[in-house]
Amino acid sequence: MTKEQLFQNILRKKSFLCVGLDTDIKKIPEHLLKEEDPIFAFNKAIIDATQDLCIAYKPNLAFYESLGVKGWIAFEKTVKYIKTQYPDQFIIADAKRGDIGNTSAMYARSFFEELDIDSVTVAPYMGEDSVSPFLTYPGKWVILLALTSNKGSHDFQLTADTEGERLFEKVLRKSQQWAGDDQMMYVVGATQGRAFEDIRKIVPDHFLLVPGVGAQGGSLEEVCKYGMNKQCGLIVNSSRGIIYVDKSEAFAEASRKAAQEVQAQMAKQLEERLL
Amino acid sequence: MTKEQLFQNILRKKSFLCVGLDTDIKKIPEHLLKEEDPIFAFNKAIIDATQDLCIAYKPNLAFYESLGVKGWIAFEKTVKYIKTQYPDQFIIADAKRGDIGNTSAMYARSFFEELDIDSVTVAPYMGEDSVSPFLTYPGKWVILLALTSNKGSHDFQLTADTEGERLFEKVLRKSQQWAGDDQMMYVVGATQGRAFEDIRKIVPDHFLLVPGVGAQGGSLEEVCKYGMNKQCGLIVNSSRGIIYVDKSEAFAEASRKAAQEVQAQMAKQLEERLL
Repeated sequence: MTKEQLFQNILRKKSFLCVGLDTDIKKIPEHLLKEEDPIFAFNKAIIDATQDLCIAYKPNLAFYESLGVKGWIAFEKTVKYIKTQYPDQFIIADAKRGDIGNTSAMYARSFFEELDIDSVTVAPYMGEDSVSPFLTYPGKWVILLALTSNKGSHDFQLTADTEGERLFEKVLRKSQQWAGDDQMMYVVGATQGRAFEDIRKIVPDHFLLVPGVGAQGGSLEEVCKYGMNKQCGLIVNSSRGIIYVDKSEAFAEASRKAAQEVQAQMAKQLEERLL
Repeated sequence: MTKEQLFQNILRKKSFLCVGLDTDIKKIPEHLLKEEDPIFAFNKAIIDATQDLCIAYKPNLAFYESLGVKGWIAFEKTVKYIKTQYPDQFIIADAKRGDIGNTSAMYARSFFEELDIDSVTVAPYMGEDSVSPFLTYPGKWVILLALTSNKGSHDFQLTADTEGERLFEKVLRKSQQWAGDDQMMYVVGATQGRAFEDIRKIVPDHFLLVPGVGAQGGSLEEVCKYGMNKQCGLIVNSSRGIIYVDKSEAFAEASRKAAQEVQAQMAKQLEERLL
């Protein structure tokens, strides 16, 4: 998917919502446990109930891997389901991978060739040759961790070097030598508030994937105020706040309502700041 | 496995070799492709041929994930085979994971509970709460990326802060507040040479997992000179240099010979520096 296509989807749906499919067998409604593949049954219901309100889905690989082979089957079925039923959705494999070159190339093959997923989250710690194998697929995206939403983001990401440049800023700056805003996005946590201003000085035109609205405490309004650019430039993820709002047989309808609320707020932000 | 057990295995086998099971369907001997599970068939043959010469096996998850469900089955069968046939082997899931707390907890559950693997490699970029969920399993190990073997290690890991501390040094120092040398090891690439001296000043007693000897150009002698401590403190990995030396039907025997050569060098290093 190109940046322009993504932007058009955002305008059409008045939404820049990504639904995080962090599907945990211990948290899904009990009646689904009778299904042959409860994880996929849950995902399918959530996707059908939210697809017109969001522009992206982000399965986090950890939740699937924790179930071993069964989990991988559910993951692959979920990706195939989205691709065939709702091909305009942008799929993010939240994998936070990053390894030496020949190994990163294996991960890239896995996500981009075998599964034809649009994008993968990648950790920057190992530097350029751990990221560049993901950049050899035209139309596919690397979403690089920059400033994450968790408390531990303070441990290393905010450390300033001798010239005052903080690690996340160095990641943003250096990685622009590896690819442009047509192939690279950045993860910036919604909890980082004013840091979005600093980030937009370095990457004014890039899309940012923003987790941490909702359960983790980030504010959508603040994110938009400091982070939105003229092509929106934001994909805001919500996982727990949408997929786990209800455990009854009507869970999908409840998730739809939760997504509708977020979408309405997003429509308002787009209208005020962009349109 | 405890640190002392690991050390005893090293003394008994006169080896601190880890065989990296980076098993690529495109690189294994052709005659194996007839097997029902070629990846497992290859791994089993390599393991049987090298198990008395090494103290650890390190499957890199990328190579298994790239095959999807089939790859996960091969990975699980490989882990089970090692655990039942050669229970004194230390198993390292080379996964380089690291995510927000509840997600890292899912990965920990996957590797430590479901598969009962001894250790997982973890990336430090997201800080303490991305690592600590892996530390709640007694007897299990986190192997944290510190200074890796690839060219890209220069992009961020060597950046010094305002007090002159480089990022990899900060990772070593800070992470000691999260766990001791009975639960934490560090990845330090064999290509880093003299940096082992600086590293041993910060973590004198920890085990280091050292990739990059062989194909990547690191020197075993240099690693031992600057990195070995009184409990050896080194697990040196070789992947391509052992598992892909021959593509004929006699590949396992050739791998055994390659492992024997490395083990003989290790025995010499242990004798000179330790015994």
